Amino acid sequence: MKIDDIEYRTIWPSADRSSVEIIDQTALPHAFKTRRLETLASVIDAIKTMQVRGAPLIGAAAAYGIALAMSEDASDHNLQQAAQRLVASRPTAVNLHWAVERVLAKLEGLPAMQRNEVAWKEAAAICEEDVRINQAIGKHGLKLIELQVELQKRKQGETPGAQQEDSASECGQAAGTAQPSQTPKTQFNILTHCNAGWLATVNWGTALAPIYAAHDAGLHIHVWVDETRPRNQGGSLTAWELGSHGVPHTVITDNAGGHLMQHGKVDMIIVGADRVTRTGDVCNKIGTYLKALAAFDNDVPFYVAVPSPTIDWSIENGTEEIPIEERSPDEVAWIQGRLASGEVACVNVLPAGSSAANPAFDVTPARLVTGIITERGVCRPADLISLFKD
Amino acid sequence: MKIDDIEYRTIWPSADRSSVEIIDQTALPHAFKTRRLETLASVIDAIKTMQVRGAPLIGAAAAYGIALAMSEDASDHNLQQAAQRLVASRPTAVNLHWAVERVLAKLEGLPAMQRNEVAWKEAAAICEEDVRINQAIGKHGLKLIELQVELQKRKQGETPGAQQEDSASECGQAAGTAQPSQTPKTQFNILTHCNAGWLATVNWGTALAPIYAAHDAGLHIHVWVDETRPRNQGGSLTAWELGSHGVPHTVITDNAGGHLMQHGKVDMIIVGADRVTRTGDVCNKIGTYLKALAAFDNDVPFYVAVPSPTIDWSIENGTEEIPIEERSPDEVAWIQGRLASGEVACVNVLPAGSSAANPAFDVTPARLVTGIITERGVCRPADLISLFKD
Repeated sequence: MKIDDIEYRTIWPSADRSSVEIIDQTALPHAFKTRRLETLASVIDAIKTMQVRGAPLIGAAAAYGIALAMSEDASDHNLQQAAQRLVASRPTAVNLHWAVERVLAKLEGLPAMQRNEVAWKEAAAICEEDVRINQAIGKHGLKLIELQVELQKRKQGETPGAQQEDSASECGQAAGTAQPSQTPKTQFNILTHCNAGWLATVNWGTALAPIYAAHDAGLHIHVWVDETRPRNQGGSLTAWELGSHGVPHTVITDNAGGHLMQHGKVDMIIVGADRVTRTGDVCNKIGTYLKALAAFDNDVPFYVAVPSPTIDWSIENGTEEIPIEERSPDEVAWIQGRLASGEVACVNVLPAGSSAANPAFDVTPARLVTGIITERGVCRPADLISLFKD
Repeated sequence: MKIDDIEYRTIWPSADRSSVEIIDQTALPHAFKTRRLETLASVIDAIKTMQVRGAPLIGAAAAYGIALAMSEDASDHNLQQAAQRLVASRPTAVNLHWAVERVLAKLEGLPAMQRNEVAWKEAAAICEEDVRINQAIGKHGLKLIELQVELQKRKQGETPGAQQEDSASECGQAAGTAQPSQTPKTQFNILTHCNAGWLATVNWGTALAPIYAAHDAGLHIHVWVDETRPRNQGGSLTAWELGSHGVPHTVITDNAGGHLMQHGKVDMIIVGADRVTRTGDVCNKIGTYLKALAAFDNDVPFYVAVPSPTIDWSIENGTEEIPIEERSPDEVAWIQGRLASGEVACVNVLPAGSSAANPAFDVTPARLVTGIITERGVCRPADLISLFKD
């Protein structure tokens, strides 16, 4: 995707294969910075601190992590060590495991001197495949949106808007204040949670790929962007992505989606996933389950965009079997943003002495999922196995 | 309640009736400040900017607002003007309307020269009544908690905890970092949303009154505190209140509650309300509906603590009939907290150019509510009318 007219991916190797470069996503949306990773340790650090995040991008970064390890020492011992350290860096996303296993399978049978070359090639192949998969998800998702828009046209009217009040925040008088939202009736309103856009992948995104496709096809899409506490990937990354591409969007708190659905202001939900079981249970960013419950309660279609490496065929029951990463309570306590001066700073929002808990993902049971959008097409959760049977 | 061993209420008149004093809740939890309000305009400003907030406290403040207006000019015209301006300041909480109507009814028949004296007395009476009501809610709620604790003891075991990972935040290295949570099995875990504690009332609180009563009775209560974006009344006010009183608690993002309920880590939910219909629909802080859905999906008892002035007997259907206040998008964009230096500052978390929407309340249908705790006892939503019939 383009940033200021320059075409970017989220990860790319340097020409001499001495390093891999990434967009440092912890600096967004306040600053656009790239970072050069020259060692396996720096790749693991980038994954753990979420400079790279999003299940597909974590997989791609891990593949390059092994390539960097092989550049240094292509021994069996170092290969196994690198794989183990990468897999341990984030426990929930299955793509990480998938990518490491895939590179490992290519390298294990090879003599050490060939491993470096093959590892870099395989990492590049994983990236190319991710881009093709996401384009296919965009194409299939576009058809789905077109169908929903058609259905919406057949329905009539909409609930009138909520009362607009004159209210002030103690923080609100500073420069650069946000604009109130406008959602004309003709718009098709899609809600998304967290960031499953091009920043979460090598390019195009998963949940946002159909949205970009629909916007580019001239449909009047408006996106409700869940802020997605604690790390605000929605309010920062998704809003930034959509804004850069010119897609109309409005950020809302994670609390607001249920109310909007009750009042007919959400026509469809599309989210990504970090792991999907073969039965269609969806592990995604914490809070996804609450939106799925509200969608079910209000007859709003709830779709999950899933590239096949995100499907864990070995797992039946998502709620019981997927390990949920518990991240640092500091992510709840400290929030990064721009001071009125423009300077980026972190503030602590908790009282001194209060503790916090920070489960990073939750599992939405398949019974709440309308459909899964994959590179092979759209299916009901229960039909995932037959869609991928050959 | 006590702050540093000094007994406080959230609002109190000066001895000479020239002003009313409040705790400025926008400064908490970072600083404890009181503010002297000397005019009706300053009371309205304090309500709009949420220096005073919480349905019961807004009602009490409004009564003192009329008293201040009467001190200045006790004419019919000024009385009606004051009432209208107060009612318009926050559209959702019904206590505001109730308190204004109550003082108005006392004053309208009186000669202007008597109004000042009677208004101050009536405002004080409203405050005393609020305190008595909340103590009764605490007493009834305590019985309910004791019953649930008994039920919990009969059940056995609990889901093992989530995996603890070593992770870092870009914000997390500063001083005063939050502590990881500990929730021993023997604790009874109550989740609450927003702040319906003593800060939301004149004293004791509504949803927190039973929690204080249970803690003081020696029960091992642990409170999951929903952060409650956008204004973080949970993470700031509720956490501060509970911490000051020594009640074990853990702040969580608004996204986390559903996951905790799926894993058996929430034994009960108690929230407050800004308006309850006679059919038991509950209008409360935005996001309450999502927690009620998750409670229903996981068989977690969902209770609402409601003083009778919060019940709007004139309304049948909460989702359709209660006006939902839409507050400034700046409340979503700007977050207040402490810099690592200790200085309080506001940061903007949105990309420049992204808009936000900010509905402040939502309505939880009565079908999702297990029971309502009032000063007259606990009842099912459908039984509210019979509980208050005489």
